[in-house]
Amino acid sequence: MGKNLKVHFLPFETDVHVAPGAFLLDAIKKAGLPFKSSCGGKGTCGECVVQVLNGRGKSRPSAALSDDLAGQGYVLACQTEVTENLTVELPQFQEISIKTLLDAKFIEENKDKISAVFEVKPAVKRVELTVPRPTLEDHAGDLERVRRALLKKTGIKEANWEYSVLRNLAESVRAKDGVIDTVLFKDKQDWTVLDIEPHQAGKRISGLACDIGTTTIALYLADLVTGKILGAASSYNQQLKCGEDIISRINYAAEPARLEELQGLAVSTINHLIAKAVKDARVSPSDIYYGSFAGNTTMTHLFLGIPPRYIREEPYVPTLNEVPQLAARELGLAMNPRARVQCAPAVGSYVGGDITAGLLATPILRDASKISLFIDAGTNGELVVGNKDWLVTCACSAGPAFEGGGMKSGMPASEGAIEALKLEPNGKVLYRVVGGGKPRGLCGSGLVDLMAELFVYGYIDKNGKFNESKLGSRLVLNGNGLGFLVEEGKNCHWGKDLVITERDITNLVRTKGAVYSACSLLLKNVGLTFDRIDAFYIAGGFGQHLDIENAIRIGLLPDLPREKFHYLGNTSLWGAYLILLSEQNGEMVNAIAKKMTYVELNTEPGYMHEYTGALFLPHTEIGLFPTVRKLIAP
Amino acid sequence: MGKNLKVHFLPFETDVHVAPGAFLLDAIKKAGLPFKSSCGGKGTCGECVVQVLNGRGKSRPSAALSDDLAGQGYVLACQTEVTENLTVELPQFQEISIKTLLDAKFIEENKDKISAVFEVKPAVKRVELTVPRPTLEDHAGDLERVRRALLKKTGIKEANWEYSVLRNLAESVRAKDGVIDTVLFKDKQDWTVLDIEPHQAGKRISGLACDIGTTTIALYLADLVTGKILGAASSYNQQLKCGEDIISRINYAAEPARLEELQGLAVSTINHLIAKAVKDARVSPSDIYYGSFAGNTTMTHLFLGIPPRYIREEPYVPTLNEVPQLAARELGLAMNPRARVQCAPAVGSYVGGDITAGLLATPILRDASKISLFIDAGTNGELVVGNKDWLVTCACSAGPAFEGGGMKSGMPASEGAIEALKLEPNGKVLYRVVGGGKPRGLCGSGLVDLMAELFVYGYIDKNGKFNESKLGSRLVLNGNGLGFLVEEGKNCHWGKDLVITERDITNLVRTKGAVYSACSLLLKNVGLTFDRIDAFYIAGGFGQHLDIENAIRIGLLPDLPREKFHYLGNTSLWGAYLILLSEQNGEMVNAIAKKMTYVELNTEPGYMHEYTGALFLPHTEIGLFPTVRKLIAP
Repeated sequence: MGKNLKVHFLPFETDVHVAPGAFLLDAIKKAGLPFKSSCGGKGTCGECVVQVLNGRGKSRPSAALSDDLAGQGYVLACQTEVTENLTVELPQFQEISIKTLLDAKFIEENKDKISAVFEVKPAVKRVELTVPRPTLEDHAGDLERVRRALLKKTGIKEANWEYSVLRNLAESVRAKDGVIDTVLFKDKQDWTVLDIEPHQAGKRISGLACDIGTTTIALYLADLVTGKILGAASSYNQQLKCGEDIISRINYAAEPARLEELQGLAVSTINHLIAKAVKDARVSPSDIYYGSFAGNTTMTHLFLGIPPRYIREEPYVPTLNEVPQLAARELGLAMNPRARVQCAPAVGSYVGGDITAGLLATPILRDASKISLFIDAGTNGELVVGNKDWLVTCACSAGPAFEGGGMKSGMPASEGAIEALKLEPNGKVLYRVVGGGKPRGLCGSGLVDLMAELFVYGYIDKNGKFNESKLGSRLVLNGNGLGFLVEEGKNCHWGKDLVITERDITNLVRTKGAVYSACSLLLKNVGLTFDRIDAFYIAGGFGQHLDIENAIRIGLLPDLPREKFHYLGNTSLWGAYLILLSEQNGEMVNAIAKKMTYVELNTEPGYMHEYTGALFLPHTEIGLFPTVRKLIAP
Repeated sequence: MGKNLKVHFLPFETDVHVAPGAFLLDAIKKAGLPFKSSCGGKGTCGECVVQVLNGRGKSRPSAALSDDLAGQGYVLACQTEVTENLTVELPQFQEISIKTLLDAKFIEENKDKISAVFEVKPAVKRVELTVPRPTLEDHAGDLERVRRALLKKTGIKEANWEYSVLRNLAESVRAKDGVIDTVLFKDKQDWTVLDIEPHQAGKRISGLACDIGTTTIALYLADLVTGKILGAASSYNQQLKCGEDIISRINYAAEPARLEELQGLAVSTINHLIAKAVKDARVSPSDIYYGSFAGNTTMTHLFLGIPPRYIREEPYVPTLNEVPQLAARELGLAMNPRARVQCAPAVGSYVGGDITAGLLATPILRDASKISLFIDAGTNGELVVGNKDWLVTCACSAGPAFEGGGMKSGMPASEGAIEALKLEPNGKVLYRVVGGGKPRGLCGSGLVDLMAELFVYGYIDKNGKFNESKLGSRLVLNGNGLGFLVEEGKNCHWGKDLVITERDITNLVRTKGAVYSACSLLLKNVGLTFDRIDAFYIAGGFGQHLDIENAIRIGLLPDLPREKFHYLGNTSLWGAYLILLSEQNGEMVNAIAKKMTYVELNTEPGYMHEYTGALFLPHTEIGLFPTVRKLIAP
């Protein structure tokens, strides 16, 4: 045996050393990376496809890999021996391209509808100053002359100064004959000078808005003068390799070194996304002076490297709800090291900054006369009911199914995802793929459509079990049991069949049941019923379009007039963007967090009854879903 | 030849590698350390004595080294070969023990006499809080509960938070059932939480006061509750190896890497002194939460790593006069990393924080009816004239002679220094040594005494030249020319003769001439004469006692009623201590700096005339010194 070989995995930036001749799949396992492979290394399922970017392994040919993919450097990890140092990308976790929802047109259309103010007045601004030359008569230092110029131009008398700004001040002031660009940050009444540079005409000042989800992380890069979104990127959260849900991450973080690791993985994921966004937008990372982050309470703690332990120990309090301002350098973020970082405030351990920020992006706080219900169905589901005057909130454990997690053919709402789907009576499947091209999997909205269609066409019964009498070209039986063939491998990107299994269906039923029963219980808690709700706002990683009709057919949403429902997409990201744009929104979100009352559902009487009742399609009490009953009546 | 050997030099903490058999003196030169050795390596002058702390060199015996010293590991660097790895201390730069002038009694005696307030109300304080346990009913996080407790106890509504405090908060709050020690820092109206720890009864909270001199650095470690000085230390500034005066340091700092080096040397010197002071006082460095620093403008720039270049380029403006608050970690200081650092403000490029802080320790600003003159004769001389209502200041280049720099037998006012001296008519020399024991050299006050006595007894004439007719047992001729033998080698610590040369005398005359002529010119500038001055305050590194009579005899001070003169010692250090003790003094020193008017003497008409006139003993116009004329009249 020669000396060990190194395999470098992207996007995780993880190295592992293995003996020559080891299989790549074993290297992936040794690196502790989360990775799907169902055939047990036989080379038949084709799930373990990876792309070799540097170096060459020794691969056996496999029917599960198309020639087209093989030509692009794709190999099956279970059929490839490591014979030299390799760099390998795991496509299951490659960056997800997200659409820039918030373009100028969208903003223009929605600015009067949401709770936040739609203005571009961020807490960070760039001011051009002209600093008079020093003279023999005036012994004021460079700093004093900058202070005078700042006072004259902006009225700011006192400011805090970043140390590194002082170190370069003399040269910055002299480079362009006293004309300088000053970057200022405002926190409540205090100003801090984040940067001073020789003036450069047309130089950008940018900010980041970022949603830190348990499963996926998404961000926008925005111009802080115009508010325009310059770039967007999203990917799986690299923390996935340490556990798929919040509880497993909290357990993992019990040791200080592992907490550091989790923080590092969150930051690494974000830094990769920043690198992608700045490249697309041709912005320098050093021009990013502000970051607005929104995540659930555990994600926020892990992002900050704060032990999350007490979140899951009675009485379940986080270390902090409202997060003080921090500098980017303290977190290792790939922006200007002096950039300020703001995290949206949490309400408590199970309702976090993703929800408070998300509310900014809804119309809920516009009006005291209408009562709205807000549902964010991410890996964790959170609900809010209320209006301008009062807000009550609760959490439920939804699971990652709607974000494509834990599903054989699930994926986030990114390129290649089937985001909408329809069955024809002849068994043909029509679908729309994000970005066009061959499908790679199904995202949340596609899964909702599929489940609804399977139910309506009788492929599954109200228990979510396949109807064996339908066995044929679509409902097929293979090594994994019964499954519905959405698309044949030859028409799919990865060259393998797109199949949904009974286990996947069970997963989806649990998720939708958790969300519906939580809505129902929350309303009971505040003494309301569904018909009293004027508007339902639905958020989450489903995709760009969630079909409300299908969501009602599977019992995810209650059977109410369709015009009451509004699908808003990733409100956490949108909220983070609103906070980035306007200091006033930053104040508003803090006020929202303080206003919200948290209800613990697990201890509510009737919790189990509600939940088990919702584990049917659409519900054990079919009377709650009259339009669905009509549809499925024989 | 074998492989190179490493020599580690203290107190510089510098390593150098040399071939086996190299002489230690060459190793010192290779390391670029400032080191005196006049005989050129012949083993006769005995100046190159060093102490080998680890390892053994191969030394030739020398008459210039006493058996006593040899027994303690001392060797002559020029007579010692490096035959293994060595750790070597250079006694010429060993730590200087300073007396704790500011003990409780001294404070008590002087508190009503100085400009500053004498109170212990520092900007940093420790507050004990009791944080209620979390409950299921209240979802407030740990941070929110600490905030409530802080508001209740202190009335502080808003505070900034150090990031690392947040990371340990959950455990700190739980360790002692909610009883915590909170360290708070106040900057103007803003509060910052520097630390939170589980409560510990009787735990100290300490601060540092530090004078950063061009030649020597001195500090006090003080208790921030009682104000008591717990420890003191001083040493040569390690920057000496990059140049002895400000101009050479500024030139050295022209390259960024060398600026970093100078900053590192200042911080290294200070960190060594901190290590000594905390050891003596049994204080943990992590309990030091505040540092108050005073230095001239160049020293302050170098301490902060700010390029000092423009200080010596017309129109001579520094980067900053008033220094924003910084954190200890930003500078690499060996205190609590979150400790705040305050530097006394400068007036301009040549009147720095050592002077503004120093004024706090004088009575000058007490009274508007008396006009005072303040002289700080360090390596740079600075003068201030004025009262409560107005202050005019100027600088002069005095040179390091009064601090023992650039002199064959000079040394700082530390252990072994002759601090007072008297000649008897029979030629006998009486002297007092700091700390008792055998003399090692002469500090400033000893040198002033010696020069005055040599002049009065006719050993030197009014030009500072030796009178050859006095050749004998005291005025001797050796390889260095004429010299006055202060003490024979056998009675000296280093075993070699203590001699003052004509070159040393010339050095001292230039220094005293620079100070006197600057005083004279400054007064002319404000339309005053010496007789209008009600009080003269003299500061500087002379030693604990400066003999005013002798200072007048050599023409350092004007010939006025003796009761007008007051010698105050290291006012820069004392001022830094006053700022440490009381937030109000910090505000006062900023007001003082703004109030001062700077006068550039070099461009004053009559500058050269005044200076050359003062290059005599006591002065070319003997009529200015009537009492001295009487004394030396034949």
